[in-house]
Amino acid sequence: MSANATRQVRLGVVGLGRAFSLMLPTFLADQRVRLAAACDPREAARQQFARDFDAPVYEDLAAMVTSPDLDAVYIASPHQYHAAHACLAAEHGKHLLVEKPMAISLAECDRIIEACGRGGVRVIVGHCHSFDSPYLHARQLIASGRFGAVRMIHALNYTDFLYRPRRPEELQTEAGGGVVFSQAAHQVDVVRLLAGAPATRVRATLGRWDPARPTEGAYGAMLWFEDGAYASLTYSGYGRFDTDPWNGGFSEMGFATREADYGRARRKLASIGSADAEARLKADGTYGGPSWQAPAGAERALSNQHFGPVIVSCEHADIRPMPDGIWVYADSQREHIPLPAPAVPRFEVIDELVDAVVHGREPLHDGAWARSTLEVCLAMLTSAREERDVTLTRQARASPHPADVSPVA
Amino acid sequence: MSANATRQVRLGVVGLGRAFSLMLPTFLADQRVRLAAACDPREAARQQFARDFDAPVYEDLAAMVTSPDLDAVYIASPHQYHAAHACLAAEHGKHLLVEKPMAISLAECDRIIEACGRGGVRVIVGHCHSFDSPYLHARQLIASGRFGAVRMIHALNYTDFLYRPRRPEELQTEAGGGVVFSQAAHQVDVVRLLAGAPATRVRATLGRWDPARPTEGAYGAMLWFEDGAYASLTYSGYGRFDTDPWNGGFSEMGFATREADYGRARRKLASIGSADAEARLKADGTYGGPSWQAPAGAERALSNQHFGPVIVSCEHADIRPMPDGIWVYADSQREHIPLPAPAVPRFEVIDELVDAVVHGREPLHDGAWARSTLEVCLAMLTSAREERDVTLTRQARASPHPADVSPVA
Repeated sequence: MSANATRQVRLGVVGLGRAFSLMLPTFLADQRVRLAAACDPREAARQQFARDFDAPVYEDLAAMVTSPDLDAVYIASPHQYHAAHACLAAEHGKHLLVEKPMAISLAECDRIIEACGRGGVRVIVGHCHSFDSPYLHARQLIASGRFGAVRMIHALNYTDFLYRPRRPEELQTEAGGGVVFSQAAHQVDVVRLLAGAPATRVRATLGRWDPARPTEGAYGAMLWFEDGAYASLTYSGYGRFDTDPWNGGFSEMGFATREADYGRARRKLASIGSADAEARLKADGTYGGPSWQAPAGAERALSNQHFGPVIVSCEHADIRPMPDGIWVYADSQREHIPLPAPAVPRFEVIDELVDAVVHGREPLHDGAWARSTLEVCLAMLTSAREERDVTLTRQARASPHPADVSPVA
Repeated sequence: MSANATRQVRLGVVGLGRAFSLMLPTFLADQRVRLAAACDPREAARQQFARDFDAPVYEDLAAMVTSPDLDAVYIASPHQYHAAHACLAAEHGKHLLVEKPMAISLAECDRIIEACGRGGVRVIVGHCHSFDSPYLHARQLIASGRFGAVRMIHALNYTDFLYRPRRPEELQTEAGGGVVFSQAAHQVDVVRLLAGAPATRVRATLGRWDPARPTEGAYGAMLWFEDGAYASLTYSGYGRFDTDPWNGGFSEMGFATREADYGRARRKLASIGSADAEARLKADGTYGGPSWQAPAGAERALSNQHFGPVIVSCEHADIRPMPDGIWVYADSQREHIPLPAPAVPRFEVIDELVDAVVHGREPLHDGAWARSTLEVCLAMLTSAREERDVTLTRQARASPHPADVSPVA
């Protein structure tokens, strides 16, 4: 790993679990960042990290954050630990990359933001699919004003989320589990980015249809914005109908959807039997586990990543960000703006990280931005429980021009 | 036109406009019904009807409804006249086929239902797309209980509705214009049919984005049902993105979508200029007008008709009625149940009409059913205006087994 002209960002990882494994292809391929330390309670994961990266590993985060050899820390621990881990790292002067959701309460978000202020560091929350280039480019197109104001956004996503192997806490809403914390965190962020204006109120309803997976696996929501625009959001993680064919036939990660694999997640899960066995299966397939498979360098995505079909209706055009480009349906003609698959997946996260850490720029996906998305997610839970609109009071505005958007890394 | 073994239903038509022209292929092809009289203020339309059907024509409905040679009257006048026309016919003992929406207020619906009671006649409201075979068959599948209870329904439709030629009143909500009265009347009816249980509350928002077409051209709504199911409904008639490719590539009437025709409705409208010219254009192309074209017998639809993509999530399967059949996405496998294009379009309306008039059976699409859909539509207008959930109090339940559903006429 040779250093670039630009200074590399030295990153310490907190939590070598699923989120880390999804970011690993990015860290391996993007020369602007270097994995320089890791902290995890699992010894096997620590040993593998030490072997793979020839870097120090820690059982105790308090030890890692005192290292002078780290610029930033990537918080990829379970949702309920984000706040404690992020605050500790920020107070030791480490910039933060925090996995979504930022935390599971607004008070926790506030604590992280305050800790960053005290530590003089920046926080970026992601990866979240609102980093995906097609959404960032669509936001630029919209913010250009060429097509008038946003009036309506329709976002939907049908996946097999609920039947992927889970730890028990991932099926408990109060512990940050379920599709509102894990999946609305993407969809709300994408919708907020495209709407631009601050959100004002939300009305939502939740689906909990499988007693064996006792958290919400589906939701519907309406979201209103300060400028009068509104959005409809729908999600199902129950693993039946799949919206990927409505979005170019690309999977969430930008690979070809495998239609022959119908029902695979549920079938595999049914063959396991117990919650213990399921948690073990997840752990085994995670970084450092006996069935862990390193990302193959050759397996390049066919498209950008995505989070389901989205249609943004502006006054004079419908704009449809898709994994392979953007469709603009204007009054008299339609146009497809191609956005090729990036060489480095999720390079957009490293763009913001380098901008913040090396160039001192304020990131789009900062703490106030991510807190706004969490406020909407929490309000969805409240709205469903109390059967009423919930007013939003802590909403940030989307940056009109996400900095340095480049279609090809 | 030879009589069948079954007695033909002799139908008088009130209003030879667009709704009539859309039903005409059915009346021409289905031998169970005979057009036996018509009433319309336009002389050219009356003359053409008299020529085409060798049947009496009337300028005054009061004269037509006294005819002893009619079994039923088809009310296809503008929405705001439905109630007066329907009541007059019912009081003279004529069964009713009333175009959707049944009327533009619940009091009008009540008056029609009461008039039918006094007249001893039945009322069927339609055509509405909830008559389309794929929805009726999906309802049967759901009601069979094989897939558990309905939990969530997602319905969306993006069309060019707002830019088709209109009379001025069709662009005034208070006169029954706009997409809530004209299009939600379809979508709500389809969703209610599939849900089965009575609806309990609605939250909605409207889009009015084009000052030149000053009625709502879009809406979003959430609808809840007595058994805890909920539905998300989205509609845009602004003529940009089109959902037909998400529904098998068939147009609303079951023909191939013409992708090359992008923007055609808006382009054509832009070439006209004034509201007067637009109303004239509409009249000219309507039955009896100088540019009227009779339906070509050879132009058989490629599929059933439809009203946009719909996904019904039950406890154990997602069910997706499509123009060419039904997809059942169950836990372990998915299945496509083909439903070929019918020989007679909208034969399902004549099924219910014959059942009611000849066999005395209670129709699925009766007055109480249609009033329920209108209650939802009116509540959508209220919810959007007052920014709150609106409770529904006059909701009928879907018949568990729509009678005599046959995939091929």
